[in-house]
Amino acid sequence: MSKATFSASGNSADAAIAFARSRPNTYLSELYDFLRIPSVSTRPEHVDDVKAAAQWLANNMEVAGLENIRIFPTIGHPVVYSDWLHAGDNKPTVLFYGHYDVQPADDLALWKSPPFEPEVRKDNIYARGASDDKGQLLMLVKAVEALLRADGALPVNVKFIVEGEEESGGKGLKQFIPEHSDRLSADVAFISDTTMATWDQPSIVYGLRGMCSVNIDVIGPKLDVHSGVYGGGINNPINALLHIIAQLIDEDGHILIPGFYDDVLPLEAEERERISQYPFDEEEWLRRILVTKPWGDPDFTTLERIGARPTLDVNGIVGGYTGDGGKTIIPSRAHAKVSMRLVPNQDPQDILEKVTRYVASIAPDSVKVELSAMGASQASLTNYHIPAMKAVEEACFTVFGRYPVYHREGGSIPITGQFQRDLGIETILLGFGLPHDRIHAPNERFYLPNYYRGIEAVIHFLVNYSRVPTQ
Amino acid sequence: MSKATFSASGNSADAAIAFARSRPNTYLSELYDFLRIPSVSTRPEHVDDVKAAAQWLANNMEVAGLENIRIFPTIGHPVVYSDWLHAGDNKPTVLFYGHYDVQPADDLALWKSPPFEPEVRKDNIYARGASDDKGQLLMLVKAVEALLRADGALPVNVKFIVEGEEESGGKGLKQFIPEHSDRLSADVAFISDTTMATWDQPSIVYGLRGMCSVNIDVIGPKLDVHSGVYGGGINNPINALLHIIAQLIDEDGHILIPGFYDDVLPLEAEERERISQYPFDEEEWLRRILVTKPWGDPDFTTLERIGARPTLDVNGIVGGYTGDGGKTIIPSRAHAKVSMRLVPNQDPQDILEKVTRYVASIAPDSVKVELSAMGASQASLTNYHIPAMKAVEEACFTVFGRYPVYHREGGSIPITGQFQRDLGIETILLGFGLPHDRIHAPNERFYLPNYYRGIEAVIHFLVNYSRVPTQ
Repeated sequence: MSKATFSASGNSADAAIAFARSRPNTYLSELYDFLRIPSVSTRPEHVDDVKAAAQWLANNMEVAGLENIRIFPTIGHPVVYSDWLHAGDNKPTVLFYGHYDVQPADDLALWKSPPFEPEVRKDNIYARGASDDKGQLLMLVKAVEALLRADGALPVNVKFIVEGEEESGGKGLKQFIPEHSDRLSADVAFISDTTMATWDQPSIVYGLRGMCSVNIDVIGPKLDVHSGVYGGGINNPINALLHIIAQLIDEDGHILIPGFYDDVLPLEAEERERISQYPFDEEEWLRRILVTKPWGDPDFTTLERIGARPTLDVNGIVGGYTGDGGKTIIPSRAHAKVSMRLVPNQDPQDILEKVTRYVASIAPDSVKVELSAMGASQASLTNYHIPAMKAVEEACFTVFGRYPVYHREGGSIPITGQFQRDLGIETILLGFGLPHDRIHAPNERFYLPNYYRGIEAVIHFLVNYSRVPTQ
Repeated sequence: MSKATFSASGNSADAAIAFARSRPNTYLSELYDFLRIPSVSTRPEHVDDVKAAAQWLANNMEVAGLENIRIFPTIGHPVVYSDWLHAGDNKPTVLFYGHYDVQPADDLALWKSPPFEPEVRKDNIYARGASDDKGQLLMLVKAVEALLRADGALPVNVKFIVEGEEESGGKGLKQFIPEHSDRLSADVAFISDTTMATWDQPSIVYGLRGMCSVNIDVIGPKLDVHSGVYGGGINNPINALLHIIAQLIDEDGHILIPGFYDDVLPLEAEERERISQYPFDEEEWLRRILVTKPWGDPDFTTLERIGARPTLDVNGIVGGYTGDGGKTIIPSRAHAKVSMRLVPNQDPQDILEKVTRYVASIAPDSVKVELSAMGASQASLTNYHIPAMKAVEEACFTVFGRYPVYHREGGSIPITGQFQRDLGIETILLGFGLPHDRIHAPNERFYLPNYYRGIEAVIHFLVNYSRVPTQ
């Protein structure tokens, strides 16, 4: 086995990078095509678009030179698989993961250019899914393509597993992984679905929050009734709903569900120190979204709260009359979508049981209260002492001139926990999004120079990793 | 002056009633025409429809034989005036009031027949405004018409003042009344915009609740942001809004705004006794709307709470993602419509100041909280010892075979307080709606037999009243 150091990549990286640099327009036009497909996985009316995105990706993988391409149906949206396994048994295997589905695009009126008609403005490409995750996913495929086209081979074995339910909390891939654990066996997983600290500071996410989402519905009279005729005589579903939620979390962000914090892994001093070193301009972070001051548990810094502490947020609420003017009714029902971000070692199933039990215990009997589970995922922490991490660090240094910083991110990538559990592998999260890509919001964008740099970083990673002795 | 008793009406009532009974189809088709106009006063897109309803009413008054018909523009929707003043100075003057505007009709999907295409099913006419108040208003015009057509004259002097902003809390009529107090001078006001206890039990409302409505808007980030990226770091406008409202009213319906109850007129034992005698089938009242149990301050009966105690209800709330599935965001803003029903002697302006001050005091500084006044009206109590009341009681007995019961109703008819204040007159509230007319809700209806009986009752009232010595 090679004993080469990581300080420079070998010839195969040079040829692949030369190839990649010769095709910026092709790579951009392919990204346009991928982004034009409105693969919104949470909406029934987009089910065919989600299928079309899976098919488009499979086709693109074929052009890239990947093999054994298959679109697996699941109980939800399909999973796309492909691989290239000719590097030899003495070479490691990388499992690339991504998702081809996107968040809903509303409010449409707030988009400067339509969400599914990509437009480049000042080095950014604007479209739903540009950063989360189509742009970053396509980057991985393009890196593999460059190596295969330039060298006719990859320096390591590679597998792709791409799902269409990341944004909808679907169970398709969750079932697929244990059923196909042999097919998916690898030495490490690699995901680009996170952000850099700044445009030129590569960042590795080693901790992610999990999630537990519920819908709460409160049902009162069978139809909206006159608030003069019934007001004071029957309970109001909106009033009842907001009293329930006010008992789930207090005004300072402390979650009041009994036992909620029981399993939270405490933040050790060493880790608090590491988090404090992450470049984070809190003022700028707030100014960008026109918020005047941070909020939350004063016992933790903002960066600790958004990365390493659990939350409870109402993502949406609706009930009664919401048009112009007024309408003096007691509404028939009220609905809220509540999601909790979880941290290691909270168990989403346990949290779901606790919130379900607690809501049932505080629900008034003058209305009907229904709670339904919407999705759950485990938080994760990566062991960053694995050899592949060193290959990533050097790749970043080669492309960006800086070693990556490590941090815990507040979002959820449920798959990392499952890779750990079902496949026994760690996941490297090297993302090329920027903090203000407006993912999940109108005018989502992706900074194109990092689309190209990301391709090069992944090429270097694969070449570097081929020189690591497999354990 | 006549000393005739009230036990039977004279010849002019007989002729008018014979005339009215000969025209059921005309009266019904006119009601159809009136109901077809979608005069939703709260919606800008219906401003021309509101005008059209005013014009239709003016035309109908002309056909009825009323005089001096005028459509007065106001700062809001127009006021329709007409009169007939030839009964002589020794005869009293009745000021009829009604409103030609209606509530919004959503949710359209819940209507069995379209809200502005009236349909008769099983003795009820279904349409928005059928009971509240077009049906009951037209009844008054038809009663006057029958007397004028049958006798060529009315037994008393009559004025009509009809507004188009009752459902929108507009200020047009509020300004109009003091500016036209001479034109509107009368001995008593008469309104049919309330309900009977049962289909054959006439009811006089002697107390009405007032109202103070506000909108509360909570503004956070300039756009919806990812709840993983920002969750725990910034306040969530929905979370903040529901904590504010949870501090306005507790789960049992006690309103927590400091000083809110200061001026509430206590319910005396005599009045509690009177209220307890009102025929009220609480179980049936709840069953109709599929509510299993009543709710509210246990120190008062349901009938007391809905008629004589103040309330605070969220009429509508919206924020964040409210479509199918989920969207893990912290929303940019949240909005609630909150209305408080007031009782004698609460001053709506004082309550508005108290709620404004209190919300400002509890609003967190991590979001922007805006409160705007939406409308305010005074509660009212009528002196039921006036002579006109006796004329009404006898008219009810003649038509329904029963004397009316007296009660306090939970709704608001702001105008009664103003008639008392600006014109110095009491208002008789004799309504012909039924408790389950679904006013303000889908499938609003009006029980047609009482449309016709109402016309007759008003004819008898005018004739009876002409025999009352004016003070």
